[in-house]
Amino acid sequence: MKAAISSLISSRNFNLHQFSLSRSIFRQPSLLLPSHFPVIFTGANLISHKFRFHSIKSSPIMASSFSPEQARSPPALPLPIPPVTKFKIALCQLAVTADKQRNIEHARKAIEEAVEKGAQLVVLPEIWNCPYSHDSLPLYAEDIEAGGDASPSTAMLSEVSRRLKVTIIGGSIVERSGDKFYNASCVFGTDGKLKAKHRKIHLFDIDIPGKITFIESKTIAAGQTPTVVDTEVGRIGIGICYDIRFPELAMMYAARGAHLICYPGAFNMTTGPLHWELLQRARAVDNQLYVATCSPARNADASYVAWGHSTLVGPFGEVLATTEHDEAIVISEIDYSFIELRRTNLPLLKQRRGDLYQLVDVQGLKSE
Amino acid sequence: MKAAISSLISSRNFNLHQFSLSRSIFRQPSLLLPSHFPVIFTGANLISHKFRFHSIKSSPIMASSFSPEQARSPPALPLPIPPVTKFKIALCQLAVTADKQRNIEHARKAIEEAVEKGAQLVVLPEIWNCPYSHDSLPLYAEDIEAGGDASPSTAMLSEVSRRLKVTIIGGSIVERSGDKFYNASCVFGTDGKLKAKHRKIHLFDIDIPGKITFIESKTIAAGQTPTVVDTEVGRIGIGICYDIRFPELAMMYAARGAHLICYPGAFNMTTGPLHWELLQRARAVDNQLYVATCSPARNADASYVAWGHSTLVGPFGEVLATTEHDEAIVISEIDYSFIELRRTNLPLLKQRRGDLYQLVDVQGLKSE
Repeated sequence: MKAAISSLISSRNFNLHQFSLSRSIFRQPSLLLPSHFPVIFTGANLISHKFRFHSIKSSPIMASSFSPEQARSPPALPLPIPPVTKFKIALCQLAVTADKQRNIEHARKAIEEAVEKGAQLVVLPEIWNCPYSHDSLPLYAEDIEAGGDASPSTAMLSEVSRRLKVTIIGGSIVERSGDKFYNASCVFGTDGKLKAKHRKIHLFDIDIPGKITFIESKTIAAGQTPTVVDTEVGRIGIGICYDIRFPELAMMYAARGAHLICYPGAFNMTTGPLHWELLQRARAVDNQLYVATCSPARNADASYVAWGHSTLVGPFGEVLATTEHDEAIVISEIDYSFIELRRTNLPLLKQRRGDLYQLVDVQGLKSE
Repeated sequence: MKAAISSLISSRNFNLHQFSLSRSIFRQPSLLLPSHFPVIFTGANLISHKFRFHSIKSSPIMASSFSPEQARSPPALPLPIPPVTKFKIALCQLAVTADKQRNIEHARKAIEEAVEKGAQLVVLPEIWNCPYSHDSLPLYAEDIEAGGDASPSTAMLSEVSRRLKVTIIGGSIVERSGDKFYNASCVFGTDGKLKAKHRKIHLFDIDIPGKITFIESKTIAAGQTPTVVDTEVGRIGIGICYDIRFPELAMMYAARGAHLICYPGAFNMTTGPLHWELLQRARAVDNQLYVATCSPARNADASYVAWGHSTLVGPFGEVLATTEHDEAIVISEIDYSFIELRRTNLPLLKQRRGDLYQLVDVQGLKSE
């Protein structure tokens, strides 16, 4: 655990030095419970108080009046009041093996440990119950709608979320539905019920010769629906991995009132160092909300080698907690009051030029 | 000059190490001409050849067919063939004083020096001919449309661009037009003619208490038109500083076929370290094009202290050249063939979900 924290600190030095406004990122020692996973804590309690009393009402900002409400169609919703403002999130960066039953038990233990450490929201990695390869994906698929024995992975998530009263963004697993397969993320509420299922919308079809070529659409079908879900820890938008490359999705989620976007994802050894953190920070700073990612731990022997580096980013684009590539549970505090503060500091929503551009949320518009 | 290069290298270590695919960034010694400005060269000739022969035709990518063309309205234009594929760009990070005539002569010399070093495109900073303060902005304003003696700054840009046959993105100056003032960027072609004028669309009205509060709209009126201009060095979109915070503008420019977006800008000591590089890299990686920024040099005694760090970013979001905060001319090579290569590696344009979202370019649609 010391090693994990030390590598965390060294990898973040660059950002920390730059972040002059910073909520100072501090670490808490591990709690007294025995730990199977290295656990990383960060928090921002003290500084957030300092900030809060500066904020909001007396802002001298004069919003420009160029139809900012028309910059989204339907118009952006006001940020909903979340059931809790401050809570702990856990990103379970799990090692994944070819043994599905072991993966399920391992994930269960990680969730239990995260909850013991105080997490009210637990995020799992993309494809956490099987190896990410064309051969494996169909073999490990589950019929999520049928549930029970047809979907042991989601049965576990349902059981543990109900038992521990925790909200779970269940990473993703392969869903079998008729003759199709989807890369699907299931969200469970504290009552153990499936609150939402997001099927990956943008499939990972890329070709960087000599580096990484993968055509996910050979095996997986694309989802048809953006997913925003109201949970006991706020309104959460869901994307899976490659979905993060499309700024439109995050912009729609923000317009639908999301506090947080969770992207279970498994970037690779080429796109990971190039783009993983950049994309998370970009989505957070542009939309002034929290972004959380959760990757599998790296397995250098796998056919697809994941980058790791599960991360929480705040609404100023600041990295609040992250880790390297080994198995870890990253625990950090989310404080939604920062969203409002940042939107007062930089009132982008009121400054948009709806007279010049408009992002249309097609399904959002139809459902009005 | 040695100091400038050495600080460049140390500040970039973090990214360079991460950029495993990297066009390796190397430096050339200064040419033999006497130099008044520290000049920073980078280039990528060797590696770009290596890449080029891998690319394009034989891609195994299967584009998903979810109406990607509908993700932009009007539909995104194909990338135009630029007049040149490879050329040198210069970012003149100039020290700005209260002496306007000195600022004009200083800028002229910097442009001359950049051209001597081989630059075919020169970018100046935001508000390069006067201090950035509410008191100064109206006093230094020029009537750009009247030209001649009414606009000595643009008269100089016209003269030097024609004489040296160079394309100039003239940073920005304050434009007086009737009873209004604009923050305006003038683009001059190699014939000395004003090819385009961009008036800053999104005004810098921000309030981070105790850090930075500025209400640009007290003095400056907002522009009404996005600006993309065909030049002898490709199709260029123009934004000024705060314009970079709005991803919609860059997305529209990409859809209009821009190869490069230039943002003259003067971020400050709070938002500079937090967001300046992040926003540039985000616009570049999401839109798969080049992004260039040019800031004034830092003056710690000024009422508004600029961050500096003028930067060129490539279509993979990679920092190709940058500098610290002192006066400098950053010279780097742009190779537009990388745009096509990156769009083949990651075919985002074909993978967009026009069935789920659409960005409307309001003026682009009206002009169809």
